[in-house]
Amino acid sequence: MEPSSLSLRRVGIDTWRENVVYLHRNCPVVRASGFQALSKVLVQANGRSITAVLNVVDDEHIVQACELGVSEDAFERLQVAEGHPVQVDHAEPPASIAALHRKIAGERLSREELVAMMDDIVAARYSKIELAAFVVATNQFELDRDEVRYLTEAMIAAGRRIDWQHDVGRGPIVDKHCIGGIPGNRTSMIVVPIVTAHGMLCPKTSSRAITSPAGTADTMAVLADVELPLARLSEIVRATHGCLAWGGTADLSPADDILISVERPLAIDSPGQMVASILSKKIAAGSTHLVLDIPVGPSAKVRNMPQAQRLKRLFEYVAARLNLQLDVVITDGRQPIGRGIGPVLEARDVMQVLDNDPRAPQDLRQKALRLAGRVIEFHPDVRGGEGYRIARDILESGRALAQMNAIIDAQGRNPAPPAVAALTHELAAAADGVVVAFDNLRLARIARLAGAPQVPGAGVDLLRKLGDPVRRGDPLYRIHAAYAADLGFARRLADVDCGMRVGGADELPRDVVAGGGAADGL
Amino acid sequence: MEPSSLSLRRVGIDTWRENVVYLHRNCPVVRASGFQALSKVLVQANGRSITAVLNVVDDEHIVQACELGVSEDAFERLQVAEGHPVQVDHAEPPASIAALHRKIAGERLSREELVAMMDDIVAARYSKIELAAFVVATNQFELDRDEVRYLTEAMIAAGRRIDWQHDVGRGPIVDKHCIGGIPGNRTSMIVVPIVTAHGMLCPKTSSRAITSPAGTADTMAVLADVELPLARLSEIVRATHGCLAWGGTADLSPADDILISVERPLAIDSPGQMVASILSKKIAAGSTHLVLDIPVGPSAKVRNMPQAQRLKRLFEYVAARLNLQLDVVITDGRQPIGRGIGPVLEARDVMQVLDNDPRAPQDLRQKALRLAGRVIEFHPDVRGGEGYRIARDILESGRALAQMNAIIDAQGRNPAPPAVAALTHELAAAADGVVVAFDNLRLARIARLAGAPQVPGAGVDLLRKLGDPVRRGDPLYRIHAAYAADLGFARRLADVDCGMRVGGADELPRDVVAGGGAADGL
Repeated sequence: MEPSSLSLRRVGIDTWRENVVYLHRNCPVVRASGFQALSKVLVQANGRSITAVLNVVDDEHIVQACELGVSEDAFERLQVAEGHPVQVDHAEPPASIAALHRKIAGERLSREELVAMMDDIVAARYSKIELAAFVVATNQFELDRDEVRYLTEAMIAAGRRIDWQHDVGRGPIVDKHCIGGIPGNRTSMIVVPIVTAHGMLCPKTSSRAITSPAGTADTMAVLADVELPLARLSEIVRATHGCLAWGGTADLSPADDILISVERPLAIDSPGQMVASILSKKIAAGSTHLVLDIPVGPSAKVRNMPQAQRLKRLFEYVAARLNLQLDVVITDGRQPIGRGIGPVLEARDVMQVLDNDPRAPQDLRQKALRLAGRVIEFHPDVRGGEGYRIARDILESGRALAQMNAIIDAQGRNPAPPAVAALTHELAAAADGVVVAFDNLRLARIARLAGAPQVPGAGVDLLRKLGDPVRRGDPLYRIHAAYAADLGFARRLADVDCGMRVGGADELPRDVVAGGGAADGL
Repeated sequence: MEPSSLSLRRVGIDTWRENVVYLHRNCPVVRASGFQALSKVLVQANGRSITAVLNVVDDEHIVQACELGVSEDAFERLQVAEGHPVQVDHAEPPASIAALHRKIAGERLSREELVAMMDDIVAARYSKIELAAFVVATNQFELDRDEVRYLTEAMIAAGRRIDWQHDVGRGPIVDKHCIGGIPGNRTSMIVVPIVTAHGMLCPKTSSRAITSPAGTADTMAVLADVELPLARLSEIVRATHGCLAWGGTADLSPADDILISVERPLAIDSPGQMVASILSKKIAAGSTHLVLDIPVGPSAKVRNMPQAQRLKRLFEYVAARLNLQLDVVITDGRQPIGRGIGPVLEARDVMQVLDNDPRAPQDLRQKALRLAGRVIEFHPDVRGGEGYRIARDILESGRALAQMNAIIDAQGRNPAPPAVAALTHELAAAADGVVVAFDNLRLARIARLAGAPQVPGAGVDLLRKLGDPVRRGDPLYRIHAAYAADLGFARRLADVDCGMRVGGADELPRDVVAGGGAADGL
């Protein structure tokens, strides 16, 4: 028997984008060829091939000695039936590993090297160790701006790119994006109805939460179907000029998804990686004009104005070379936007704003109007400075709400939207004073432990914001959870440090964003 | 039902030092608490706890919805029986992750931070991604020499430390080590018999190969048992003054083993990591006096003399602060030492030298004598410069061979030593000329693909060395393999580039090691 030919078996283990192969310890290939746990192997069947990490198995119920087991993801990539003969071989390192070693040594990479790397990453030829090495090396030897440009181009090229011109003809495809880090910041769900009501095309695809308590797609899913095939999206955009869908099905910049899965656990979010990530996703999604929100604050991703200005210039440099019209807006990131943190609570805030409900959180309303105004100013007939007023008129007239309902109906209205989770716990102020600081990261973690976003009704509902006076014992926020265990997880974290600080009025940090806030664009 | 209590199940999958937990997609914990694939979870049972990576399973034969499956390594760490109730919770990041983030940001770490990190690493609280981040970050922001010292101390503290004084009384415990990278370089198996024959104590523990075709432990295993519990080792050392055993059972500097498993696939071998790795292992093994071999050559780990001198000073700085007497010897690393590459072939070379066989490879003999001489000069009664002559007398008199046989018998002689593997293929010179260059790495990979070290008789047998004249068609080396598939793997790599270059005599690179070679110490 040729020791390297085995029978394929699907092993029902989800290893999330890392191909894993399971071979029995008594498999002749393991014994003969010196394969060891964590070796990289090349699996070939029917003209297709994948590289995978090897796990050695001691249980014949998982794989037998004559079988080669593959994880769900690897099975999908191989696209051959169970029982099919497969060959296994030592894997050569992917060709682009030499470029990885060069980057680890601090050298600059060329366009060709970055293209080869992104292709290898998308083909799952990089191990988690190699991915982490790339992320840390590009974080440390900061990418120069041409490398960022090449990385962005390589990420776009390694995935699919949507061309809306077929569907909607020539004209700007507008979008709005925030670099993230601010809980509750669901302006997109207000901006999209406003700008599409003005006749602009805004086919917005968003992400689900990875480490945050909600992404726009999670919050929109409370109201409507967001998992829409591309053909459906085209119909919806033709009918309503906009959508608020999940981008995950579209295979846009898949290298970015893989790199993010490594960056997040390491809390790495370097400027070069952030720019390549955001711009590659937006350009792959077909955007031609983008308003970008960079929040600045002590617990935001960007801590001060000089840092924000540097990041802004890097975004502008790369966007200009990729023919993306970009308008960067630096905003106040000292605290969450709106009251709710978690899908259902955030959807409530959004609908209150669209409904012109007097209870609507004013900070969310003002920020959404400001951003919508900047998007509207991409319109060739709108003069600079007029956007805010146009956006406000659309919101106050009820046209934004009507447009949101049209988009919800077009995507498929959720017939039974989930309710706010029933179990609650309130965090009380420990002293008299005013709210002087928020820890965005901590509040996000508390909401996440409470169950968000998997439990849509879970999260945190803020009862006080910066500058609000409180007395000792007053509730600062309410945790919502569906399960006692989750409420316990969240409470335990909140009890150590609740993520809000009460102090003297003189301790209130000033808004570092010059000219920012509600007055902008008026 | 409390959703976080499940029944323990052992899953027969070897994930090699990474704890993996398997939960069914329908497990109430997965559904309720938003655990996702690749989350980190905390598993508690009977007062013990481990952190693990989560894989989500779709097959009830692997785990059922009420079960928590654990990989072999995790099962061993938990030390509770199958069926035992276990609790699962979101894992807090290990406390030392803040220090990892500081290192990624380029800051210096304190002794306390490094101690906490090594403890967390040994307790398997770091994911592969976090380990890779540590390795790359410490490679790029080169550790300063005090950080290397603290890292070394932390690595020693996180494992077991052998104290030979109980067994053998006060007196130097000598050792000899090479930084690696040179195939065939099995001097330890000659040095140990010589210096122990001179009455010195040399309880040598060695590693098995990780990415090389043989470690000293693999080669010694051809002749004798090397997997010896510590109590047996003590007896052997009392009886013979020395041993040549595998160090893996002794739990010496386990953090080093874990970090090495990440450094190797990334081809990272930074000076700081190398110094901490080697010195922590040696000091944990109880050595008080060490001769360290740093080979220099175009395809060695160290490429030139200035680099070798810098590395030497770093070793000396750390060793002095840890009370280790250190003598660094810089040697010629332009080509493999001896002829054989692979356990059986290397054992043959070693025994020919000890046997004073005229066919013995002279470079191996001279290098071993040189290093043994330096070890012997640690003896208080030996004058500087006398060591080489003493070593040569011991070898030529047959006392070294007798001593080797005593050690082999004490450890347990292999009654049926494996033979050289039967399948062969010879690589022929493509032109007339002299051998002008070796690629150490490539020859190691060819020997490894041929089956070494798992197949002890497999490997590469060199028929020509640097400076040897060859005619077109003359064999340069012979590949040995036990299986046709392995021979195929090795031939395919050798056919692309055989790892030896034939050229004009003027192309022969000079030995950069001033005063090195056979004449040293005479």
